[in-house]
Amino acid sequence: MSERVVMAPPLYMVQKREIIDRFIDEYIPPSDQYPQALHEAIRYSINAGGKRLRPILALAAYEACGGNNEIIYPAAVAVELIHTYSLIHDDLPCMDDDDLRRGQPTLHKKFNEAVALLAGDALHDLAFELMARTGNPDAIRELAEAIGTGGMLAGQMADMEAEGRNLTLEEITFIHTRKTGKLIRGTVRIGGLLAGASTDYIRAITGYGEKIGLAFQIIDDILDIEGDPEMLGKPVGSDSKNLKATFPGVVGLEQSRQSAGKLIDEAIEIVTGVVSQPDNFVQIARFIGGRQN
Amino acid sequence: MSERVVMAPPLYMVQKREIIDRFIDEYIPPSDQYPQALHEAIRYSINAGGKRLRPILALAAYEACGGNNEIIYPAAVAVELIHTYSLIHDDLPCMDDDDLRRGQPTLHKKFNEAVALLAGDALHDLAFELMARTGNPDAIRELAEAIGTGGMLAGQMADMEAEGRNLTLEEITFIHTRKTGKLIRGTVRIGGLLAGASTDYIRAITGYGEKIGLAFQIIDDILDIEGDPEMLGKPVGSDSKNLKATFPGVVGLEQSRQSAGKLIDEAIEIVTGVVSQPDNFVQIARFIGGRQN
Repeated sequence: MSERVVMAPPLYMVQKREIIDRFIDEYIPPSDQYPQALHEAIRYSINAGGKRLRPILALAAYEACGGNNEIIYPAAVAVELIHTYSLIHDDLPCMDDDDLRRGQPTLHKKFNEAVALLAGDALHDLAFELMARTGNPDAIRELAEAIGTGGMLAGQMADMEAEGRNLTLEEITFIHTRKTGKLIRGTVRIGGLLAGASTDYIRAITGYGEKIGLAFQIIDDILDIEGDPEMLGKPVGSDSKNLKATFPGVVGLEQSRQSAGKLIDEAIEIVTGVVSQPDNFVQIARFIGGRQN
Repeated sequence: MSERVVMAPPLYMVQKREIIDRFIDEYIPPSDQYPQALHEAIRYSINAGGKRLRPILALAAYEACGGNNEIIYPAAVAVELIHTYSLIHDDLPCMDDDDLRRGQPTLHKKFNEAVALLAGDALHDLAFELMARTGNPDAIRELAEAIGTGGMLAGQMADMEAEGRNLTLEEITFIHTRKTGKLIRGTVRIGGLLAGASTDYIRAITGYGEKIGLAFQIIDDILDIEGDPEMLGKPVGSDSKNLKATFPGVVGLEQSRQSAGKLIDEAIEIVTGVVSQPDNFVQIARFIGGRQN
């Protein structure tokens, strides 16, 4: 499988990722600060090889809407902390009971369940501490709403309740737009809000965020079937093993590929000709469409 | 044991509790809204008979510093949601593994672990959504810092790590000031910040919050030894059964009673003659000092 063609991330993503990683390191308390076990656990999870897609999207949205100062960085890191918290809690034995994440033992396997529970809580909390630094209550509310019971948490519950059931296209779309989509949608909107974007800009990036958010999760489902385990850092087939509801499970692989491709195209179209700097948005969307891990 | 003399809560607390309960009902999504299981679980926990001490303290601090509009209510409810989230996660099998809370089955016993985990996460999140409504980033940051790894979460980790060990007075004070004290301290400071209080006022209510926060947890430890199970809604002796570090375990019951009484007196002294309306603060402190549940 190693001759599979991999799309290199655009230069914008590579450069921003480096900057994001520096801010992550700055914002998270050092491992030798009490409670050490918790800070070590947090650093273990946050440094486990995430693509930093969400922080990069926050930056791209902020810049696309004319934002140009450092106030975006705490917000960009905040969404990555939220993403990491959701993965840690999702992996726990009472949820998906996963042993591996990105090729490494999951946090509760590496440490223990109590530390994983509290490290997730700590990341959830630190995200809002960072959001508070932006001084923008609208952006803070945007994040809270994206990940609450009207957003990500609704998706996680629906995902659990759907295990082993046959779903309709409407149901699987409901799950995916919430479980993964709402945080990505919220992420670009936070970038726009912090840049003081116009209603037109916000409308365009919201549409973009919704499309790529859903596409991202559909591609996740596809990769769990036909991805390269080495590149994914985890065995494929875990959705099927866990009786997870997936897009290919409802409409088939071919239709899923087509839907994801269409969503990516639509996302690009929505922002092109509206926001002042759509280029990075376009590149990120194409990268998501072609990702292999 | 039923002839034990119980101090009735001051009228201020009774009246404010009613108002708080109305706002809690308004701010929490209805049980028939998706995801129903999560909203039902949240309502089960939040309506399990809490004293609403923290929201009342937020109100008292706000009013003592001259605040007089409704912006305090989302913040007052937020600290109660945080308190409830911390209890739900603390009760989980990987933490204290408690079956009863206020005389009722704990949330993971009533529903299941996954629902309890996510309901805690949802309350944590909703608290920040409500804080965002205050429009005050300083108050939002105050809450995040009070309950993060420099505050409540440090206390929860220290509490776990101390199980079965002999502690010094310094160590048990470290645990109690964080596990319980930091949220109470943060609560009164949020009231002050939202009222736009002067530095002198903030300093006074901070000192008050620190003293009653520590006193509250010492009295909790005392009640777990000599309280009335019927009034507490749970069996006594759970700390000893769980090998929990307690104040009486370190300095004895008599010394614990004296320390709690001294802290209450000092708290009252700190605010008297400084803030413009110290009366409610004084009453609440005396109530905490005499509480039987």
